[in-house]
Amino acid sequence: MSRFFSSRYRDLEAYVPGEQPKEMRYIKLNTNESPFPPPASVCEAVAAEALKLPLYPDPECTELRESLAALYGVSKEETFVTNGSDDILNFAFMAFVEPSVGAAFADITYGFYEVFAELHHLPYRKIPLLDDFSLDLDAFKKANEVLFIANPNAPTGIALSVAKIEELIADKPDRMVVIDEAYVEFGAESCLQLLKKYDNLLVVRTFSKSRSLAGGRLGYAFGRPEIIAELNTLKYSMNPYNVNRLTLAAGAEILRLDGVIKENCRQIQLIREKTAKELKDMGFFVTDSLANFLFARHPRLSGEEYYLELKKRGILVRHFSNPRIAEFNRISIGSAEDMDSFCRITREILKTKENTL
Amino acid sequence: MSRFFSSRYRDLEAYVPGEQPKEMRYIKLNTNESPFPPPASVCEAVAAEALKLPLYPDPECTELRESLAALYGVSKEETFVTNGSDDILNFAFMAFVEPSVGAAFADITYGFYEVFAELHHLPYRKIPLLDDFSLDLDAFKKANEVLFIANPNAPTGIALSVAKIEELIADKPDRMVVIDEAYVEFGAESCLQLLKKYDNLLVVRTFSKSRSLAGGRLGYAFGRPEIIAELNTLKYSMNPYNVNRLTLAAGAEILRLDGVIKENCRQIQLIREKTAKELKDMGFFVTDSLANFLFARHPRLSGEEYYLELKKRGILVRHFSNPRIAEFNRISIGSAEDMDSFCRITREILKTKENTL
Repeated sequence: MSRFFSSRYRDLEAYVPGEQPKEMRYIKLNTNESPFPPPASVCEAVAAEALKLPLYPDPECTELRESLAALYGVSKEETFVTNGSDDILNFAFMAFVEPSVGAAFADITYGFYEVFAELHHLPYRKIPLLDDFSLDLDAFKKANEVLFIANPNAPTGIALSVAKIEELIADKPDRMVVIDEAYVEFGAESCLQLLKKYDNLLVVRTFSKSRSLAGGRLGYAFGRPEIIAELNTLKYSMNPYNVNRLTLAAGAEILRLDGVIKENCRQIQLIREKTAKELKDMGFFVTDSLANFLFARHPRLSGEEYYLELKKRGILVRHFSNPRIAEFNRISIGSAEDMDSFCRITREILKTKENTL
Repeated sequence: MSRFFSSRYRDLEAYVPGEQPKEMRYIKLNTNESPFPPPASVCEAVAAEALKLPLYPDPECTELRESLAALYGVSKEETFVTNGSDDILNFAFMAFVEPSVGAAFADITYGFYEVFAELHHLPYRKIPLLDDFSLDLDAFKKANEVLFIANPNAPTGIALSVAKIEELIADKPDRMVVIDEAYVEFGAESCLQLLKKYDNLLVVRTFSKSRSLAGGRLGYAFGRPEIIAELNTLKYSMNPYNVNRLTLAAGAEILRLDGVIKENCRQIQLIREKTAKELKDMGFFVTDSLANFLFARHPRLSGEEYYLELKKRGILVRHFSNPRIAEFNRISIGSAEDMDSFCRITREILKTKENTL
């Protein structure tokens, strides 16, 4: 560490992103990316926009916000756009977590919530998931902290119903609830409809999963106009032009192709259910995931061993060292072909394991 | 303001970016963008990369950092890449400004330094420029705070020599000096060479000005490996994938075309000198700018009036309300044709003014 590094950040442990291997060709089932390439018109839109690269992008992202607002039945003033949904979560921690109040989130959830709380020196509390990995709704109801809830949750894929989220929101009208719907398009219910009734709600979304745009970095969120204005104050105080022109053009074109995206999401769900069934047939315990990934453990194969055996055979999945889930792996849903390979190789691993026992 | 907004940010005044008009076609000389379109191969590189949009970008930006390092004779570990240079400045305020020490910068300089200090609740001091708008080197030498210096300075365009920057750096080896070289390629000297000798230096650069990539958002910085590692810790704690694939591809292609960029910068300098001479012939006082803009005032035309008269006639320049420079306007150097129009229209404005007096 240099002698220049501020005492405020010396203890910071950065989030560790999933591996992005450069050297070898893996079947990449570790970062919940979409297996569907962007439609050709997205490449064309991006190439055309490249001619305008010398000019700054629109810091207000007006056009994209209008398109999102129209698609989801809200107003532009209720719509926020930024450089990936991590940016929105970061701003939400800054904007809505009062240091005297703090934040609360599940012990097993998206790892970045803890990183943001640490980064901004905000107090936080982890509320353990119940034994079946479902959210401890009673404990969340009692909490006075700002709530951060991934729905469906990651890495478990388990979703809450809108009715249950409404209970949380209605219970304490002065407590802000941030619902991170990164994976909502794969079968769970969005709580966006609650925005008409409640002002203590921020709904966070991303183009990275369902919309095949992880490489473009585009996140969006819905909230009451005041809430969105406050997020914009932070954005304009940090990096007003943080969404670049090319990504804005790609995002606008993808919104025009919403039917294609919906069909992609339907395909992912079909492949997920087929893969889950095969894993269960092999003896795996698999959570009821409504996301574009599965969360699975096998009684006779440790989580780490399974991860390493898959990696040896050219398949990357995500393993977490947290002891409560160390026996699990999170497996992104890839193309039908990739998931067939994954199931075949998993069968091989189990067979080899059984032969050596 | 909502009842949810954190007390930490209630007094925040966001940076106001230069106007980005949507409705009418202006000659845009207000945000120091490049008049040169990106070479065709940049559009091709971006379209090809769009096929990979479903996959996250490389959070380490390895390829681009290697190319930058090779071009500038440093190592990859001394090279930082992020989502525009504002991001780097933000991280530098966080990483290197100890709250007990604070930051110091000129009273007339890039407006975002103050915004970042406010955002992070860091104490700061503005050191007035001398009467001729040059940096008060003695006052800067005496300062114990982390120094943020735009070189050339904005909006004056006035540059410091490397010898003078070396005095500042050498004087207090435990004081970090951040040199913001956003405009250095238009005739000023880079202090990058000092990195071999000193470790208390961060050199911040951007693709937005000389490299025609304001719309892509790509900033970079050079510092000792420890310094860069600390900036990366903050980046990975906030938004690890903050540079998207399309921008990385555009940036890599632009680095391959460095000869084109150098020629563009040479052209800008020629047009700047020609425009400055014309303005002086019309009676303007013009600072000795080494940037891609001019900073000018006229004895018989107020800064605001000149700004409004130009705008009425379809030309946007940048006017600042700060009383010390309210009689000036900052005029970006556009194409030769645009600057001819600008000079012609300025002559008309002066003539109309004289006729009405």
